[in-house]
Amino acid sequence: MSTDRCKIGVVAPASRMSPDVAASVLELAERLYPRRTPEIVFHPQCFASHGHFAGDDDARAEAFLEVANDASYDAVWFARGGYGSCRVVESVMPRMTQASREKTYLGYSDAGMLLAALYRAGFTSVAHGPVAQEIRRDGGDKAIARALAWIIDRAPEALEPTVDGSKKTAAFNITVLSHLLGTPLEPDLDGHVLMLEEVGEAMYRIDRSLFHITSSANIRRVSGIMLGRCSNITPNEPDFGMNEEEIAQYWCRRAGIPWLGRADIGHDAKNKVVPFGR
Amino acid sequence: MSTDRCKIGVVAPASRMSPDVAASVLELAERLYPRRTPEIVFHPQCFASHGHFAGDDDARAEAFLEVANDASYDAVWFARGGYGSCRVVESVMPRMTQASREKTYLGYSDAGMLLAALYRAGFTSVAHGPVAQEIRRDGGDKAIARALAWIIDRAPEALEPTVDGSKKTAAFNITVLSHLLGTPLEPDLDGHVLMLEEVGEAMYRIDRSLFHITSSANIRRVSGIMLGRCSNITPNEPDFGMNEEEIAQYWCRRAGIPWLGRADIGHDAKNKVVPFGR
Repeated sequence: MSTDRCKIGVVAPASRMSPDVAASVLELAERLYPRRTPEIVFHPQCFASHGHFAGDDDARAEAFLEVANDASYDAVWFARGGYGSCRVVESVMPRMTQASREKTYLGYSDAGMLLAALYRAGFTSVAHGPVAQEIRRDGGDKAIARALAWIIDRAPEALEPTVDGSKKTAAFNITVLSHLLGTPLEPDLDGHVLMLEEVGEAMYRIDRSLFHITSSANIRRVSGIMLGRCSNITPNEPDFGMNEEEIAQYWCRRAGIPWLGRADIGHDAKNKVVPFGR
Repeated sequence: MSTDRCKIGVVAPASRMSPDVAASVLELAERLYPRRTPEIVFHPQCFASHGHFAGDDDARAEAFLEVANDASYDAVWFARGGYGSCRVVESVMPRMTQASREKTYLGYSDAGMLLAALYRAGFTSVAHGPVAQEIRRDGGDKAIARALAWIIDRAPEALEPTVDGSKKTAAFNITVLSHLLGTPLEPDLDGHVLMLEEVGEAMYRIDRSLFHITSSANIRRVSGIMLGRCSNITPNEPDFGMNEEEIAQYWCRRAGIPWLGRADIGHDAKNKVVPFGR
């Protein structure tokens, strides 16, 4: 893809995004790639609204399939997280065609529900990384640049620094992974380095989710766990008495899962790309 | 137990309780049962403190085992919910003796982690119902009276009204059940009427947890789901667009699980008793 114009479709299987986010991303992409500006198509569904969601379940599923099954697109880029991907997975997965298998998928947080299902279904270019909405963050330009560098050029500097292709990897938001364990979305993570991050949860909830995750027989087969950033932790009453790293080490120790230290991922502009698989 | 004095041990495998709760419960028990006042022993561990918990993991596990394995006790009554039971289950389960199998266990919310493991291990008198801390609620006297009526006399009026012994039942807090799916705590709920309740969660979280629960192959074998009360629902931004009953019906429909209506359980003084099993 290094000389051709890359075509990227943005869809929002969870919460809606505002049109000015799309405008800012397009402007930045032109600045970053003046000669080979990627064609970034924001599906109108991104801006739809239905209660909590960017359109109802059918609208979100159809938009995802339209882009995923269209061979003219090189990548499906998730508009943002929020909540709602789990509602569309079941209806989209059986309708994905060969064209959908030949493109890149990039997102994280709530989109982890779809990334999990795609990876489980054998899709080979699925990655945990910045979403379009990231442009709203302080320093968000860098997150967008990183996402595009990965999608367009597979730039190694976009990757989480410990990812070198020698080990299988996977990355998830802690709460999202907890909520897909035992469902038909759960991928086989045997032998993977599993990177986890969290945002906006109290410490006791992080502890409870890590109990859940590390008690799963599937997860106990990972080659190790790395903890990304846990940001905007909400107050714990009383003080929990352990921080997120102590909690992760505690549950790794109890589960016999190797603790591999910190990962450079999180709900922030520094969130690096982690491909699923090798 | 109708003529003998019943001996009840109170332990706190999760959060701590204050000594005045214990005093109020003892006073109420004397008023309710002037001639055969139950002997209610609050294990000192109930009032211990270690970060978030009523004592560290070992202290909570030991207190639970002391009472559970002591043949002089007729029942283990959980002091309260909060958070922490999942941390002690693994260490207590292999150390439970025959005496522990011959008593009643009553609690709910976070204690659901232990109830699940006990029921899975074949304990025959495990029930979801009021905890001692309930006395703090408006009308909490009635909840305590109901708990004691169940423990002491198996009073049928303490039961959730649809429980008549003809069908197997089980009850859980939604978030707690979600966090034990796929772990060694998960009981076989094949053919059970499953009653669910929630407190203090946003609507999108209730939706996500019900996705998780109803997507589990084990849960899909229940004979139906009943929804208890979902109280203190935190704000959803934007408005979710469905209430908790619509959400539960939605996921039951998608999962092919019979929707059986509302259950008389919840995080409140009206919380009725639901035995695990028949």
